[in-house]
Amino acid sequence: MAHLLTVSCPLNISSKSRSYSKPSNQCSIPSSISISLPIFKSPLKKLATKTNRSQKCHTIYATAVSVGQESGSQTGSMSDKTPNKAPNRTKVMVIGGDGYCGWATSLHLSNKNYEVAVVDNLVRRHFDHQLGLDSLTPISSIHNRIRRWKSLTEKAIQLYVGDICDFEFLSEAFTSFKPDAVVHFGEQRSAPFSMIDRSRAVYTQHNNVIGTLNVLFAIKEFKEDCHLVKLGTMGEYGTPNIDIEEGYLTITHNGRTDTLPYPKQASSFYHLSKVHDSHNIAFTCKAWGIRATDLNQGVVYGVRTDETAMHEELYNRFDYDGVFGTALNRFCVQAAVGHPLTVYGKGGQTRGYLDIRDTVQCVELAIANPAKRGEFRVFNQFTEQFSVNELASLVTKAGQNLGLEVQTISVPNPRVEAEEHYYNAKHTKLVELGLKPHLLSDSLLDSLLNVAVQYKDRVDLKQIMPSVSWRKIGAKPKTIAA
Amino acid sequence: MAHLLTVSCPLNISSKSRSYSKPSNQCSIPSSISISLPIFKSPLKKLATKTNRSQKCHTIYATAVSVGQESGSQTGSMSDKTPNKAPNRTKVMVIGGDGYCGWATSLHLSNKNYEVAVVDNLVRRHFDHQLGLDSLTPISSIHNRIRRWKSLTEKAIQLYVGDICDFEFLSEAFTSFKPDAVVHFGEQRSAPFSMIDRSRAVYTQHNNVIGTLNVLFAIKEFKEDCHLVKLGTMGEYGTPNIDIEEGYLTITHNGRTDTLPYPKQASSFYHLSKVHDSHNIAFTCKAWGIRATDLNQGVVYGVRTDETAMHEELYNRFDYDGVFGTALNRFCVQAAVGHPLTVYGKGGQTRGYLDIRDTVQCVELAIANPAKRGEFRVFNQFTEQFSVNELASLVTKAGQNLGLEVQTISVPNPRVEAEEHYYNAKHTKLVELGLKPHLLSDSLLDSLLNVAVQYKDRVDLKQIMPSVSWRKIGAKPKTIAA
Repeated sequence: MAHLLTVSCPLNISSKSRSYSKPSNQCSIPSSISISLPIFKSPLKKLATKTNRSQKCHTIYATAVSVGQESGSQTGSMSDKTPNKAPNRTKVMVIGGDGYCGWATSLHLSNKNYEVAVVDNLVRRHFDHQLGLDSLTPISSIHNRIRRWKSLTEKAIQLYVGDICDFEFLSEAFTSFKPDAVVHFGEQRSAPFSMIDRSRAVYTQHNNVIGTLNVLFAIKEFKEDCHLVKLGTMGEYGTPNIDIEEGYLTITHNGRTDTLPYPKQASSFYHLSKVHDSHNIAFTCKAWGIRATDLNQGVVYGVRTDETAMHEELYNRFDYDGVFGTALNRFCVQAAVGHPLTVYGKGGQTRGYLDIRDTVQCVELAIANPAKRGEFRVFNQFTEQFSVNELASLVTKAGQNLGLEVQTISVPNPRVEAEEHYYNAKHTKLVELGLKPHLLSDSLLDSLLNVAVQYKDRVDLKQIMPSVSWRKIGAKPKTIAA
Repeated sequence: MAHLLTVSCPLNISSKSRSYSKPSNQCSIPSSISISLPIFKSPLKKLATKTNRSQKCHTIYATAVSVGQESGSQTGSMSDKTPNKAPNRTKVMVIGGDGYCGWATSLHLSNKNYEVAVVDNLVRRHFDHQLGLDSLTPISSIHNRIRRWKSLTEKAIQLYVGDICDFEFLSEAFTSFKPDAVVHFGEQRSAPFSMIDRSRAVYTQHNNVIGTLNVLFAIKEFKEDCHLVKLGTMGEYGTPNIDIEEGYLTITHNGRTDTLPYPKQASSFYHLSKVHDSHNIAFTCKAWGIRATDLNQGVVYGVRTDETAMHEELYNRFDYDGVFGTALNRFCVQAAVGHPLTVYGKGGQTRGYLDIRDTVQCVELAIANPAKRGEFRVFNQFTEQFSVNELASLVTKAGQNLGLEVQTISVPNPRVEAEEHYYNAKHTKLVELGLKPHLLSDSLLDSLLNVAVQYKDRVDLKQIMPSVSWRKIGAKPKTIAA
């Protein structure tokens, strides 16, 4: 009787007196968002209350609860009563669990019987509103997603809505959930977004660097054995003229040898924020004994995982626009709507790519095989290298097989990057832990193209072309035309 | 009639409606500080007013003006009327110009006939108040310093009081002064301060990283040919087991060769903030054509420069406490008051050191020989290497020559760092530009010890021992006992 389980125990702890306002040099993103859910069934239960440390109230969380919980006692914490809780289940906090990679990962881990809590300020949805963008695939609210997951699987995912840059909120979430591992996707993750204007550059670096610092302090303060699994990016390395290793490089210089952090050459304020994070995390591993895995992820493509395919309310987002869309996903949408594939510049830009089904697999492998205390471990998380021209060729061929007429054009490169360069990046450590890659295949491309065709009426052609220039970024706030 | 020139044109543009408040995860440092100076002579002159973009008023600046200005027209900008302004004088904005290195540099550049503007939020003085610290040497207010300099030399230094993290303020200062070079000392510069508690760690990284981002955007937006001379630190490199080069390292790996940024291994949130800055600046040089010099400075010692010695109102600060005091200066104070020299751990920690007279010389050399457009140039700015034990020996010997009984003790190292290690850092580029080093000599040590003896009644013995632990830093705000 799964449908009877689609109950929820929402709450809305509103602020008594909230005088917080962002400094003028940042985007006006609220540090936490009040949520108010429709109440399907009583009782309304206050899941968490604030301490009296201040008049502000940042801690607001909702969770899908089980029938068992509903009919049981109203005292005690929710997680203690979750019927599917076993004593030794690993508790994983997924920060940014409502995003593209985060949502797929949250479901995968829940399905694998990890106890999962999503922490998210939902700002990614806010960006879509501000920039006039939308996912190709219709996506449900995080609350409906979690309710649907519970109704289908009887597996509860806890939800904490708030901003990790707000340490009061993060402290409440941490001490309430007590994670064994934190997967940190909770960052502004678009290079073009970070290059729109000064305020978004500053927002990106502030949000990402300070958020990660807060997570490190939360681990040190509340659960020092907790394993941090942090999403980095292959873009931290840039495109050096030597092989890219996994995090470290053994260097012999003037007759002496040392193994040092691999030199970083990031090429946007977003990519730079991840470089900053990596340095900060490495220091805390050494100074405090934090255990951390930095997943230097390549470009992710695909939309379906086993779990998100279970129900339309679980569907993942699919970005094709010039700000959040990644190369392969964007090409598939372009092919579906008859728009030429837009290759930036010469198209020789080569990067590591991976299927989103491998993202969720990699994160699980990192959690299941944690770093040692004091270890700062770096894995290059991708499965294949492609140039942009190679991707365009693959999509052209797959499109033709489906009867689509696919053309390719070169557009002026909005970025500052080498368009022809050496690129050879190692990626063996996750394979050694057991990763079974889903390599890019005709069938995956067929599937992606079919998703794009299915939703092509939702495509906003104005969003396809690049709109953000690395060179023309200005200090003044850029407004978005209707 | 120099005394007649000690006039000032102060102003206090107060806020009409100032609702700004800092986020809870940061130190409560105001973004700009209203100043109100006594008016010695009329006229009260409004030097800069805000645009009407917002109700907030961040731009507040005062400047010492000449008699010529006073008696002249009241219209037009101040700098246009400065009598000693020649058409081709290089205009240098010194951000953090009220600090230890910044003040000495501002005077030196002014003395060398550069047109100088000090930009400072004066927060360094605020930290002293908050932590109950004080400079060994009594220091005058920045306003009195600038007035005195004007009265002695007829050279005007402009003053902009405000926070560069506030881009509105920085824009006003930039468009008003139109610098040819910006020397950027305006960062929280103490490693122990950044390790006091979470809020100060976050403050340090936010303040330093965002402040530098704003400076980069100001250069791009308002004066793209302006040369950025940025103070980095030798601490960005850490203590690798190979020679330290100046910013870049040519690496051969698997048969291929590239010259890459030197790997960074910073060991405090402060040092890390400088690493972040270096990466951000390097990117903007590449993407925007910014011209930048990163001065990776060693530990500075000494207190007197030719200019600060001219009058007691021009004296520089001298920090000996456990938070802002640097090793050699602190040892001299300890010797003067009969406190044992406090060596942290084994004392084999080796670093680059330089005399403050060389700091000002190096900055001038960088300005006089600017980086090319798009060039990110790194100079290691120090003159000699010493281990802490070597410094203790030198101070012991110099103290004995002055009849002081000097003892040395090892105290538990509050930091996380190698106490015995290889260290060989290159520092030839500034010498190639013409640096004539003031090497550490008996006479300099005598002079420093004599300064310490002169002011020993001002020494607060409670401030000498290290009070900040790298390992014990907590998430909760640390309060300072009386």
